Amino acid sequence: MDADGFRKAAHAAIEEIIAYNQDITKYSVLPSVKPGFLAPQLPQSAPEEPQPWGEIQADIASKIVPGLTHWQSPKFMAFFPAGVTYPSMLGELYSAAFTAPAFNWLCSPACTELETVVMDWLAQALGLPQEFLSSSASGGGGTIQGSASEAIVTCMVAARERYLHAKCDAEGLAPGSTERDDRIAHLRGRLVALSSDQAHSSTQKGALIAGTRYRSIATKLENQMALQASQLEATLAQCQAEGLEPYYITLNLGTTSTCAVDDFAGLAPVLRAHPNLWVHVDAAYAGAALICPEYSAKYSPLMKVADSFNMNMHKWLLVNFDASCLFVQNRNHLTRALSVSAAYYANKHTDSGLVTDYRDWQIPLGRRFRALKIWFVMRTYGLEGMRNHIRNSVRIGEVFADLVRSRSDLFELVTEPAFALTCFRVKPSLLGLESAADAEAEANAVSKHIGDLINERGEVFLTCSTSDGKSFIRVVSGNPNAEEKYVRAAFDAIVQTTEEVLASRDGAGANALANGHAG
Amino acid sequence: MDADGFRKAAHAAIEEIIAYNQDITKYSVLPSVKPGFLAPQLPQSAPEEPQPWGEIQADIASKIVPGLTHWQSPKFMAFFPAGVTYPSMLGELYSAAFTAPAFNWLCSPACTELETVVMDWLAQALGLPQEFLSSSASGGGGTIQGSASEAIVTCMVAARERYLHAKCDAEGLAPGSTERDDRIAHLRGRLVALSSDQAHSSTQKGALIAGTRYRSIATKLENQMALQASQLEATLAQCQAEGLEPYYITLNLGTTSTCAVDDFAGLAPVLRAHPNLWVHVDAAYAGAALICPEYSAKYSPLMKVADSFNMNMHKWLLVNFDASCLFVQNRNHLTRALSVSAAYYANKHTDSGLVTDYRDWQIPLGRRFRALKIWFVMRTYGLEGMRNHIRNSVRIGEVFADLVRSRSDLFELVTEPAFALTCFRVKPSLLGLESAADAEAEANAVSKHIGDLINERGEVFLTCSTSDGKSFIRVVSGNPNAEEKYVRAAFDAIVQTTEEVLASRDGAGANALANGHAG
Repeated sequence: MDADGFRKAAHAAIEEIIAYNQDITKYSVLPSVKPGFLAPQLPQSAPEEPQPWGEIQADIASKIVPGLTHWQSPKFMAFFPAGVTYPSMLGELYSAAFTAPAFNWLCSPACTELETVVMDWLAQALGLPQEFLSSSASGGGGTIQGSASEAIVTCMVAARERYLHAKCDAEGLAPGSTERDDRIAHLRGRLVALSSDQAHSSTQKGALIAGTRYRSIATKLENQMALQASQLEATLAQCQAEGLEPYYITLNLGTTSTCAVDDFAGLAPVLRAHPNLWVHVDAAYAGAALICPEYSAKYSPLMKVADSFNMNMHKWLLVNFDASCLFVQNRNHLTRALSVSAAYYANKHTDSGLVTDYRDWQIPLGRRFRALKIWFVMRTYGLEGMRNHIRNSVRIGEVFADLVRSRSDLFELVTEPAFALTCFRVKPSLLGLESAADAEAEANAVSKHIGDLINERGEVFLTCSTSDGKSFIRVVSGNPNAEEKYVRAAFDAIVQTTEEVLASRDGAGANALANGHAG
Repeated sequence: MDADGFRKAAHAAIEEIIAYNQDITKYSVLPSVKPGFLAPQLPQSAPEEPQPWGEIQADIASKIVPGLTHWQSPKFMAFFPAGVTYPSMLGELYSAAFTAPAFNWLCSPACTELETVVMDWLAQALGLPQEFLSSSASGGGGTIQGSASEAIVTCMVAARERYLHAKCDAEGLAPGSTERDDRIAHLRGRLVALSSDQAHSSTQKGALIAGTRYRSIATKLENQMALQASQLEATLAQCQAEGLEPYYITLNLGTTSTCAVDDFAGLAPVLRAHPNLWVHVDAAYAGAALICPEYSAKYSPLMKVADSFNMNMHKWLLVNFDASCLFVQNRNHLTRALSVSAAYYANKHTDSGLVTDYRDWQIPLGRRFRALKIWFVMRTYGLEGMRNHIRNSVRIGEVFADLVRSRSDLFELVTEPAFALTCFRVKPSLLGLESAADAEAEANAVSKHIGDLINERGEVFLTCSTSDGKSFIRVVSGNPNAEEKYVRAAFDAIVQTTEEVLASRDGAGANALANGHAG
């Protein structure tokens, strides 16, 4: 493909992308394809000879688009949003054009330095404590990771090494001695990572990758699923009694299931009493809201307790996946744990210590030029534009929550709606069961069945989840195409489906679903 | 930015990208910026109000491009190439437009299924044993990771868990029992990952992340830096004597320093005798050559010994970073180690077991639609076009190696040139030193000094490295813009710089450099 061929192909691609966005509501948000739909439509091996772009592009519309789940559709209300905007796409295009696996400063200085600049812009925009800025006395700074999961593993490895070495130092074991190595080998088997049972599964997976134990702390609906100081204290005491060594904890600013926020103010004194316990804040979704003063005033100062803080611009802040923004108060903990030198990477800039080599802040070596898309989005929208987007989503979320409240004959809220997310379920008292336990179990089964039916019908895509024994439907609408009319339509569909299910259940006899006959 | 604004901005971006490619030789391959060049040119915080695209785009040329290292320049001969092509850029554009963090099949079926198809296309194109295909009886398959480092950590974690559980099973320890947990905690401290001392630093870093020991095995120039069976046997015996448990080894098909290929045929019987030792083949760069029958006939059948095989299309195979292709013979080893379930990810497709959820094949949860760019490149070039690219690079590499050979008065080859890479240094006998050891040390220092000077002058970018005590310059030219005339010009510059350095050294007195006066 020469320059002229690229120009023509790219212009055609741009028209197709514009049309895709403009027509997005015409697609069923979930595709109707069955597993294995694609392979039979494609050759079994790559072509020997070049194919013209026209032929390739035609296959996008005919074979790929029918198999997409449309995360940009305003009917997408599942998981959390994963938005994309036009300036973000331009960032990806330039990033590809300037391809460099920029593992150290010299490998593309602009890539490293723009990342430092936009991460400082973002830290300030979120109102984070100044310790997270690259200019801070504590040696802080931000870096763009691929995902919140990678950010967690990275911090967990840094936490593990910090803990092991601090403990051996305190015990007076000399670095490099056999005694120290043996002690570290023993301690590794005792290390335990903590989080509430509402933390995203990436904390458990991170502990698995880092080769340590993991323990979750049960939370309760009466506390809005937030981790409490007393619960953490009890867990720390229990660990001590069992000879385990807690080295890391994930705290949540907006859990995946219900957007719960752990009790940071209450936890802070407990955490300060355990300075070797690494505190990571997972604000993957809800952290975006801190761009609005009404949220940052409430939450950002509390982040001072965190060694590391992570939020994904690629969820709710207009930059496409991947743009997971990780901030630390002291980058030395990352580089001490993750720096591995090799002769072929030696250069005078790295040797000088004056440049940032982001490879030592992450698991991979190479890295894409992700800062461009963040730069483009922050400038194209401006902070005011970004705040408008968040506030619009929150307003739409409140509209939906009010609709649920208006039908308290059918539904109950499971937790207080937060960050545009509403979690609700069928009211157990509706289900005609005498035992409260039976009614709860049936409300779980019926709620999940309603969610599944709605997803099967393909007009709305939402998620079901379970917290503290209660199953529920969660609805969140925060991509850039979200509009109030779509959550109103979704609510109508939910009410209709609920009434259908309740009616058919009345016909079939109570308790059908909880007994496993859910079709 | 509305649709019309995007159209105009994207058209302007495309013209800028075309011009950048056409003018690429006009840029100094290494930028002349100093550390900290960018921040003073940019505001200290993000703008409050939206900015027009024209203003943003103007900053790309004036502030970003001057700070780029031009990996696409034909004067780039450092590290390994990191190419990009027009169809690959189109893949990134569509991937952004269809943004979905496609962690499971349902989250965008086309994303998962196209990945399976193109990975099978690639496995066949590389002539890999059929065990690596998704349709294999062994349960194999390929997946696209972000980088070879991530592929290594992923396999290392799978290897670690496989080893620990196989050992406990063999010892009759019941799953979930305290005895088994304690045994695993003890064994963790004894685990050791292996590789030759020429393996990329990502193996050492991977072991660090996975929380295990790492031991490298010294290789020798007399063996072309290839790991030999006798060396591995000695290391395994030594580990046993020390009570260590080798669970993983990286074998190399093209090392970073010299493109060495470990002695797969000799190693195979040793590896077969240790079935719990996970064998990972790192073919990150040189694996691309297997697309040509003249390479695959020689190497691909030997890959049968590997549990996992990784090559990066984003180095030498026309797809931009990131496109690290990992193949395994049995995907169950990945999913058993890395699968973590959560209520919010439950869906009937996953439950059915009929779909692939690639999140369980990797460290992150979310994943980009990377298969698109591979699909576009394989079709736009065809396999013949891809082979032509590899053969052209190899031919250019041979031209350069012959130039080095033609000046055997000045230079010596360090290893046999391979996969378009030539490693050479100043001839020690030129340096007028009586002791062979002094001459070797001086040849190291002079060669490194020449490499540094050339990089400072900015007309060519190359890398220095050290293997088995010899320091050398490595030259490899394999991006899509590579041409013979540029390696000829690079060689002229190297000769001229070498003659200058030798002349100034004659003036300053022998041994100046090895004594540390290298300016």
